[in-house]
Parts: sequence; C-alpha cells; structure tokens
Amino acid sequence: MPELRKDPVVDRWVIIAPERANRPSDFAPAPRRPSGARHCPFCPGNEAETPPELLAGRPSASARDTPGWTYRVLPNRYPALKIEGGLDPAAEGLYDRMNGFGAHEIVIEAPEHDASLATMPADWVTDVLMAGRERMLDLRKDERIAYVLFFKNHGEAAGATLEHPHSQLIATPVVPGLVAAELAGAARHHEIRGRCVWCDILHQDRGSARLIVEADGFTVLAPYAPRFAFETWILPNCHRSSFEECGLEELQALARSLGDLVRRMNRALDFPAYNLILHTAPLRAPTLPYYHWHVEVVPRLTTVAGFEWGTGFFINATPPEDSAARLRESGE
Amino acid sequence: MPELRKDPVVDRWVIIAPERANRPSDFAPAPRRPSGARHCPFCPGNEAETPPELLAGRPSASARDTPGWTYRVLPNRYPALKIEGGLDPAAEGLYDRMNGFGAHEIVIEAPEHDASLATMPADWVTDVLMAGRERMLDLRKDERIAYVLFFKNHGEAAGATLEHPHSQLIATPVVPGLVAAELAGAARHHEIRGRCVWCDILHQDRGSARLIVEADGFTVLAPYAPRFAFETWILPNCHRSSFEECGLEELQALARSLGDLVRRMNRALDFPAYNLILHTAPLRAPTLPYYHWHVEVVPRLTTVAGFEWGTGFFINATPPEDSAARLRESGE
Repeated sequence: MPELRKDPVVDRWVIIAPERANRPSDFAPAPRRPSGARHCPFCPGNEAETPPELLAGRPSASARDTPGWTYRVLPNRYPALKIEGGLDPAAEGLYDRMNGFGAHEIVIEAPEHDASLATMPADWVTDVLMAGRERMLDLRKDERIAYVLFFKNHGEAAGATLEHPHSQLIATPVVPGLVAAELAGAARHHEIRGRCVWCDILHQDRGSARLIVEADGFTVLAPYAPRFAFETWILPNCHRSSFEECGLEELQALARSLGDLVRRMNRALDFPAYNLILHTAPLRAPTLPYYHWHVEVVPRLTTVAGFEWGTGFFINATPPEDSAARLRESGE
Repeated sequence: MPELRKDPVVDRWVIIAPERANRPSDFAPAPRRPSGARHCPFCPGNEAETPPELLAGRPSASARDTPGWTYRVLPNRYPALKIEGGLDPAAEGLYDRMNGFGAHEIVIEAPEHDASLATMPADWVTDVLMAGRERMLDLRKDERIAYVLFFKNHGEAAGATLEHPHSQLIATPVVPGLVAAELAGAARHHEIRGRCVWCDILHQDRGSARLIVEADGFTVLAPYAPRFAFETWILPNCHRSSFEECGLEELQALARSLGDLVRRMNRALDFPAYNLILHTAPLRAPTLPYYHWHVEVVPRLTTVAGFEWGTGFFINATPPEDSAARLRESGE
C-alpha cells in the first residue's frame, strides 16, 4: 500500500509508492528508437492488457474493453495511490502519515499511437477534457478525496514512461502543496484588494508583451515571473473557480486553445517534451471569488534541475516577453 | 542586467537572467565524451580565461591568477545576479520587481580535472568549506544581501555545465522560497513545542531505520518524507543556526562526512549525478533557537520531473528506510 508522509518542517505531503518502481517504460536508452517500434498496451486490440475501463468513447457502441473506442479511462496499473482501504491517519512520533488512499487513472486520448494534442481534431481533445471532467465529478462524491490533479506528461523529458498519448488523474486526500499556496496567496490578494488575482493578471497582461493569443474566451500568456523558459498559462477570461463547472462550449474552446498552443510550441521549439497541469479549486469547494481555474504548460527545454528543487529558487534565462514573442510569431 | 520578479499569487521570486543563455557547456550530447577530452577553463594554466580570483589556496605563495593553487574562488562569468548597481525595487502595475543585484561565485575545488568529493582528501574538502564560509562572512558585510546559497551541482543530470569539480555561491537580496518556508515552519514548531524541529528529528531518527551513519558530531539520515529517491540529510548534532559560525574542527568533520556519503552513493548507485545544498539561516540573523543548519544531498536518479515542479506534489518510489539500508551497507 502506498503511504502519504508529511515533512515536519514545511508541512509538505509526499507519496511513498514502492510499487511504482516496477512499472515498465517503452522509452529506450538513447539513441531513441523509432516511434511505435515496441508493443504498446494502450493501442487498440490490447485492451486485455490494461485494467478494465472506467469510461470510454464508443460511438459504434462496441463492447467494453474491446476495440472501437475513441478514448478510454482506466485505473493506472501502477498507481501512486489506491482506492481500497481507509486513510488511517496516525502519528509516528514527531511525524504524520496516512495510507496512500486515493485514485490514479489514465485517459488514453486516442486510438492512434502517434496522435498528439497538436494533430488531434479539437473534437477529440474536447472528449478528453469532458472525460476528465466526468471523472472529477464522479470522484468528488467520495468525501475522503480532497483534490483531483488532471495533468499530462508528454515526452520522456517530461516524465512520461509510455509514448501513446495519455493524460492522468490523481485523486488525493490532501490538497497539493502548490495549489494550497495558490489558494492562500489568492485569498490574501482578494482580502486586501477585493479582486481575483488572475482577473487582475488578465486585465494587465492582455495589453502587455506577454500576451501570446486571445481567442474564444481564453487568454494564453507568458506569466510575469515564470520559473521555466517558455512557461505558458491558459486562463479563461470568465472568472470561475472550478474546472468541473465548465460547460461543453467552454471545453471546446479550451481544446482549440490547447491544440493551437502545442502547435506553436512545436514550431518554435522543435517538438518539445512538456507538462500540462490543470489548476482548479479543491473538490466540493463552494464557488470561490478568489480562485480562477487555469492550465499551466511547461515545455522541458533544459536538464537543469536539482538546484531549483532544493531551494525553491528559480533562474530562468528566457524573459517571458521573449518567449511570448516567439510563440506569437509561431501561430498558424 | 538580470532582474528579480515576484509571482503575485505565491510570492515566489524568480531570477530572469538572459545572459545565462550564453554560457558554454562542456557536456556533449549523448553518447558521452571521455572525461577531460575538451578544453577546460578551470584547469591550471588557464587562469587567464576566468575572471580574476577573489580568494585562493596558494601554499607556495604563487602569484594571483597563475598556477600553484589548491582551490580558487572567482566571480561567475555568466552570473545569475550582479554586484553592480542598486536594488531599485519597483512596482510594474500588479507586479513587484527589483534589479538582479547580488553575487554569483564559483569555487574551483581542486586543480585536478577529475577530482571529486569522493576522491579528494578530507583536508582539501575542508579548504573548500572554509573558502565558502570566508566568502559568506565577506558577503554578509553588504546589508543589501539577505542570503548566500552555497551549493554544488555534480554531473550533467544535476544541472552542471562544466565538469571540473566546483561549487557555487549565489548571494541574493531575498531569502529563497524553500528556506523561507523552512524558517516559518521551524519557528511554528518552536513556538508550539519549545524545541528545534531538527533537534527533534535527530532525537527520533538516530534510533530509526532511516539512520545511515553517525560520526564526529554529524548524523547522516534519510528524511521521513523525502521528495526524491535517496534524498539524504547531513545534520550537525550540535544545534547551531548559521553555518558560518562553525569552527575548523566542525568543518573538518563535515568534510569527512561528505566524502563518506558520496563514496556510499557511488557504491550503491553507480556514481550518480547529485545536488548538494547548504541550508543555513539568513545572513546577520541573530542566533536562532529554532533553525538548525544542515546539508541536503539529492542524487539525480530519474528523469521524472515536470509534474512535481508544477504541483509541489512528489511521488517517491523508494521508501527512506530502504535507501538508508542501501547506504548503510555501502560503507567502507
């Protein structure tokens, strides 16, 4: 059973998940193998190799766990957290721990092994977003789950271990550290100024050199103080604290925005690995006037790593005004 | 001029340093070149290629910026922060910024290109620690500098761009985020319990499966909630808040402890890349009853990266009790 442990100094929860060490990887050591050269458990026809699906797009009403799907959602075979058992929070002397209760699911985004957010029709991407929303709405029925992280690691440098396009959902009994810090900082801003900090950012940055593109109610921009080169945020213009309250039209527009951004990154940065992370309010939070859901996208361009992790101190050689200009010029 | 910018949501300062993009790297793309195959500006005889030295060990009293040194401290040619000019803090609408004022120095640890903490005599490592302490004592005279980060990136996967053994000092006008979080968490612990949290950790963990080794007044252990596989802390048994208050004997013991730990990691993990980071109280802080200086060492074993950066949510497949056992068994 995985375990959640808390650092007693900075109150940071960490998942200790020994079984994750057993998961396979289809990334070969360099030089890179040609795409698709190995067996893939996420390709159509191999449904028996995955845990039974929780949800799937089956336009021709094919049977569960058989081909004919457009997307599939399944439990991760090597979960960071498990839905069985209780939390059993306990002290270990000075320390706090609880069972690694939660859920870890995979969204296989398309049957095609070589599909990507850059090439998938916006309708397919909308289906993936709708599937994620559906799973969040289902998971939030369980009161022990505080948060659902919906994210995507694309490419080996971004931490992906399988190449077939997929996103992930991790449902946790605690709110992740950076989300908690965002909630606290945004609440403080709202208390002092009476406004949502992201609404303020939108107001100021739409007229700045950090704007990349605005379309269909979404603003894509390079943040003022990015930790990483080409870090990019996608913000809905309309204030809303929870992603799962979005309707179909909003997700359709987000899908178009995501595809457009990944194509810009591919042109400007030669098909980078990237992480895509949804930031949204905790499950079952009331409508929050100070939190504004958004998507953060970070291409993985450098191997520079450990120092920043160890200190929380980030050095970025690319001013966001420069990265925004590059991505603006890389539009279709 | 580099610039410091603050994220308005989570109050995180980031250094935007465009000139860092110009620095050279002697790491070739894979496959790896044989060690020492290229020209190295840090090797003896090439002193003219570096900025003039600030400090050096010259046992035979050789001239500045000539061979004959045992270690050298120099300004970084591609600094993240610069000592010229003032802070000039200012608002940019919603945002806060200041000039990238500070210092960025390099400690070349030994003349030998292939030396390492594992092979250097403890006396040489002591000299490096003494040189770092000396620079901290000098930098703290400048009241604009709040903190000095003393750290080492070893190996390409840890973010090193030059192979010759070296550590770095970055002097900043603000306290780095994770250090600030440690200070706040430790002050809270002290307020509630009246004790230093690291003294409590020492008390509990010396008798636990997370102890790696204790010698000469230093305890080496795997922390209870490590973010990374084989994350290891070196804690002085004696409570002290500032590294720069340590005497020669304490640094000699730390040097032996560092060499021993790196040799254990080399045996257990096949010569991993690693980051080594000194955590100490801010400059000119009074003696703090709640802060306890220490060293954190993190080998870079996986490429998994971006998700953790984006969420503050860490998944670690190696329980610290397992990593401690491996490192205990890898002693001399």
